[in-house]
Amino acid sequence: MNNRTEIKTLGEFGLIKRLTEGMKMKQASTVVGVGDDAAVLNYHAVSDKGDQRTLVTTDLLLEGVHFNLEYVPLKHLGYKACVVNFSDIYAMNGTPTQITVGLGISSRFSVEDLDELYSGIRLACEKYGVDLVGGDTCASMNGLTIAITCLGTASEQDIVRRNGAKVNDLICVTGNLGTAYMGLQLLERERIAMQGKMQNGSEIKAFEGREYLLERQLKPEARRDIIEALRKAGIHPTAMMDISDGLSSELMHICTQSNVGCALYEDKLPIDYEAAALAEEMNLNIVTCALNGGEDYELLFTCDLEDYEKLVPLDDVYLVGHITKAEYGTILIGRNGEELPLRAQGWNAFNS
Amino acid sequence: MNNRTEIKTLGEFGLIKRLTEGMKMKQASTVVGVGDDAAVLNYHAVSDKGDQRTLVTTDLLLEGVHFNLEYVPLKHLGYKACVVNFSDIYAMNGTPTQITVGLGISSRFSVEDLDELYSGIRLACEKYGVDLVGGDTCASMNGLTIAITCLGTASEQDIVRRNGAKVNDLICVTGNLGTAYMGLQLLERERIAMQGKMQNGSEIKAFEGREYLLERQLKPEARRDIIEALRKAGIHPTAMMDISDGLSSELMHICTQSNVGCALYEDKLPIDYEAAALAEEMNLNIVTCALNGGEDYELLFTCDLEDYEKLVPLDDVYLVGHITKAEYGTILIGRNGEELPLRAQGWNAFNS
Repeated sequence: MNNRTEIKTLGEFGLIKRLTEGMKMKQASTVVGVGDDAAVLNYHAVSDKGDQRTLVTTDLLLEGVHFNLEYVPLKHLGYKACVVNFSDIYAMNGTPTQITVGLGISSRFSVEDLDELYSGIRLACEKYGVDLVGGDTCASMNGLTIAITCLGTASEQDIVRRNGAKVNDLICVTGNLGTAYMGLQLLERERIAMQGKMQNGSEIKAFEGREYLLERQLKPEARRDIIEALRKAGIHPTAMMDISDGLSSELMHICTQSNVGCALYEDKLPIDYEAAALAEEMNLNIVTCALNGGEDYELLFTCDLEDYEKLVPLDDVYLVGHITKAEYGTILIGRNGEELPLRAQGWNAFNS
Repeated sequence: MNNRTEIKTLGEFGLIKRLTEGMKMKQASTVVGVGDDAAVLNYHAVSDKGDQRTLVTTDLLLEGVHFNLEYVPLKHLGYKACVVNFSDIYAMNGTPTQITVGLGISSRFSVEDLDELYSGIRLACEKYGVDLVGGDTCASMNGLTIAITCLGTASEQDIVRRNGAKVNDLICVTGNLGTAYMGLQLLERERIAMQGKMQNGSEIKAFEGREYLLERQLKPEARRDIIEALRKAGIHPTAMMDISDGLSSELMHICTQSNVGCALYEDKLPIDYEAAALAEEMNLNIVTCALNGGEDYELLFTCDLEDYEKLVPLDDVYLVGHITKAEYGTILIGRNGEELPLRAQGWNAFNS
């Protein structure tokens, strides 16, 4: 009888490690392979910014897993599918330049549906200055599949990876955390409520006053503004990644890859008040949502303690902790000073 | 009421045209966008072959549409998923260098299954000297999704597109045509036969003597050897693409993009005798299979009439026709000299 190991026992990162272990890079042009927000290739862009390296990242979005078309408009989906890739390039301190789009489409979708999806893709490309250069469009048996690969550029000295955090570095996050997750909870609650109400013939409950939560879930933006602000302020992060699977999980990646520990302060976490109010109403712990809710697409970065003065004036950047020695572990300091080990519950697609 | 246009009324290429129409390229690094085997980007690889451009291509493979795991071993699938992308890069007269792999995996699959899939991916990367540099691995609701993007390099003067065919150019194909399609017919026939036999408890019918047909379907190779042979012979094709959707459809693409016509000779089409024998047995027209069967991953190219003498000594390259003025149309010349318009039945995934 064959052995059978369930994928969820390894998790996404354990699985990737197992599958790619021991692979030797053969091309001189491969600088960084699997294991960061994007791969780094030694292809040089001719640009007014000087000699540039090429970055590559890829994301797969599957209907029923990553999105529910009952409440996600196709235009928003197209936009988001692009932005999550741009976010990975910014997280390397790069600039996204080109995408390819692979689409698997079931017969449920019409040409007009795809016009909608593409209007979102076009809008994202327009806004972020990215070119759509290729793709593959085919029929699918079930639902919609979107596979986007994004190329970008960065000069060699600008590139920020996950492995450069040093003891005493400051830990910063941008925007607010857990908001996209609360937006999803709201959409899910209304979806279920609407099913009941449609049977009763009554009205659809409005999202009034909560548009921001929906926007964070349905139409996230990549933090190009932060990358530009950091550059202008002369801050070069020592490590950086985007927060797509929740802060806990991402911070633990940086700590593992940099071989350091961290102290994260619960009371420093930036939380949106609408998100907090909804969490209260839904009986959820907003700190847990901020630590483990996915899809915020904010940036998490570490920088040298000496950059503190430069950090303070920056809009929408929050100091949430500091890097420690590896022996200290990855610790969350609660409101009363209690020390709790961080847990990477994350948004593990294999457990849901 | 909303208008609804079915995707099959446009077909894959009509759809892509509609979706990408009027998109303006914003990046100076974008040289060629949508519409060829691969996009061409102005990123320069440092190489002993001199200044190189970067090529990008992407392919989506969906279970139930592109492959049936009842008879496709996962290792072969991984190998093929890579090779079909390499083939697109060779079809630009380039060299594949890096891939990213996006995988959507349902809970039906075990870690051991993915080990198998990856052993094929590793083998293909090893054989073709390509690095796996990134990916995205996530759960799926239904079956297996494989999204591969491949980068490659070519010097600017080497790149061959689809739009350079000129009147009187020779039309050449490599290998043989329709064989992968006959391999698929054989596998499908045996699958159906096996279902019946398993109910009867009798034995599985063997594929003896037909291994080549199966290999062409299950483990195709990209024609790196031809690209090298052409270079060595000093032949620079005027137009080229790989034959993934059938010769008719591909040749019509070259004619449309080059604004020319063609005369293709039925009796010149390279056909494998095993494939012909099986077609006879299954009551299929082997010429139709050669013209419209997909997945051969051979090369179709045109070259200057002056290259004729250099072409003759090349192994596995067959002269099948010549390019004409556009007014002549795209014509198949039958065995008895009759002229028939080529039809791009192709392998249109939206009609099946």
